[in-house]
Amino acid sequence: GEPVLVASTDGVGTKTLLAAQHDRWECVGADIVHHGVDDVLVQGARPLAFLDTVAAGRLDPAVVERIVSSMADACAGVGCVLLGGETAEMPGVIEPGAVDVAGTMLGVVDRDDLLPNAAVAPGHLIVGLGSDGLHTNGWSLVRRLVADRDLTLPRPGGEVPLIDELLVPHRSYLGPLDKAIGAGLVDALAHITGGGIPGNLARALPDGVGADVHLDRWELPGLQRWLVAEAGIDLDEAATIWNLGLGMLALVHPDRLDELRAAIDEPTWIVGELTDRPGVRLVGTAG
Amino acid sequence: GEPVLVASTDGVGTKTLLAAQHDRWECVGADIVHHGVDDVLVQGARPLAFLDTVAAGRLDPAVVERIVSSMADACAGVGCVLLGGETAEMPGVIEPGAVDVAGTMLGVVDRDDLLPNAAVAPGHLIVGLGSDGLHTNGWSLVRRLVADRDLTLPRPGGEVPLIDELLVPHRSYLGPLDKAIGAGLVDALAHITGGGIPGNLARALPDGVGADVHLDRWELPGLQRWLVAEAGIDLDEAATIWNLGLGMLALVHPDRLDELRAAIDEPTWIVGELTDRPGVRLVGTAG
Repeated sequence: GEPVLVASTDGVGTKTLLAAQHDRWECVGADIVHHGVDDVLVQGARPLAFLDTVAAGRLDPAVVERIVSSMADACAGVGCVLLGGETAEMPGVIEPGAVDVAGTMLGVVDRDDLLPNAAVAPGHLIVGLGSDGLHTNGWSLVRRLVADRDLTLPRPGGEVPLIDELLVPHRSYLGPLDKAIGAGLVDALAHITGGGIPGNLARALPDGVGADVHLDRWELPGLQRWLVAEAGIDLDEAATIWNLGLGMLALVHPDRLDELRAAIDEPTWIVGELTDRPGVRLVGTAG
Repeated sequence: GEPVLVASTDGVGTKTLLAAQHDRWECVGADIVHHGVDDVLVQGARPLAFLDTVAAGRLDPAVVERIVSSMADACAGVGCVLLGGETAEMPGVIEPGAVDVAGTMLGVVDRDDLLPNAAVAPGHLIVGLGSDGLHTNGWSLVRRLVADRDLTLPRPGGEVPLIDELLVPHRSYLGPLDKAIGAGLVDALAHITGGGIPGNLARALPDGVGADVHLDRWELPGLQRWLVAEAGIDLDEAATIWNLGLGMLALVHPDRLDELRAAIDEPTWIVGELTDRPGVRLVGTAG
């Protein structure tokens, strides 16, 4: 076919401040690489090469080494090349002690396989895949809520430190979706990043098509349930800040739903459907 | 032939702090785009597409608009697509009032035309092209030297504000070198960025090959002469921080020197030659 190059640039954002505070740099390499993988996947593309940027007021070589090593590991895990990058000392631009981690992922896809495709239409079902925590969005609010408190969450087996759940890296959906995309079962994808389900699902829809997402069709993860309560905001607002437990949505024709779910080797939820009323609506209350 | 994709990521660095102080955002768009153009040119590649990152503690939409417009203009000027980008608010990571501007340039080159090529060898001549000021390196030291002083430089016709010369954008060398590269006259290029002439020229040389650069072969620009004196450092040290007036070096076989210079429609200087003694040496004193 005709290969098309796609590219996506993004950053880890203020999650790095929590990584710094807890000396957990290994997560941010996977964060930024997987964020890029998922962004090119939404266009139907497989990751090809990654370029990173690591900037600080003063660079700590040991920290840079840990971040870049974790990027290299994540790149190897998704079969892309860590092509190069930039490390920059920017006193006066980056706050003392902070590190800014960003990157550009290049991907490739045959023109015929670009997503979203022309089949997306009212009646399509919305299939959700679970997130591993908050991924790389909504961290400024999290930091305000958590501040310097030493919080724990109740879990089977006892209390666990909140920070352990917060700093789980962004997932790559290449593994779970590779087969389904290759088989042409997916007509569009929405990667749930900044703007949440409403913002990212809207970008996958053609003119004149809307979506109803039913909040009672999946379970809001405990961490995000706690954050929503702690923030004192309603779920509609939280849905524009955090992923609410779904990191990727796949749009599928109802006739191919069973085939799609069989091709994805992990739990999925049918969380809604496309309609002929433009706009993304969150319906009902969280389960 | 066989097209090869190349890519380069870099940032404007702390030059943005001076742009902020003087409300001159238009320069930084050209800075980062032309930096990328020159980085892919060094690999023999022509620019294809650019992705930007603009980050601040709190984004000012008017400032973002000015920066991105200037990037779009610069992209149009070099015939590449502004493919997309990321604007991020990162309170706690980026200092209040500062803006971090970075980008990734993608380029393409036929595999047979990749630079540096196998012809680079002792006896090759080093041809320098002039810089437009400091480009995008050495700004933290400049800021310490300039601080908040309202400095002027003597110029024909009267004193001019130092800031006017400081904030001239990074040049693109695509225009001046396009013909020469297309005609196969250039065997390697060194883009004089962080690390200066010694650092960047070294990267263009094969094992066992060194370079002598004669400091009296071109004139140190007044601005950089002033900065070197003000910093109280010797020229060897300054040469690793600033470009000393040469933004790009082309390596050419002596038999093709005249043809190369004729193909470049601007002044050039023959500033040195490659030797069989590894390492880059700065010889003599500045003219």
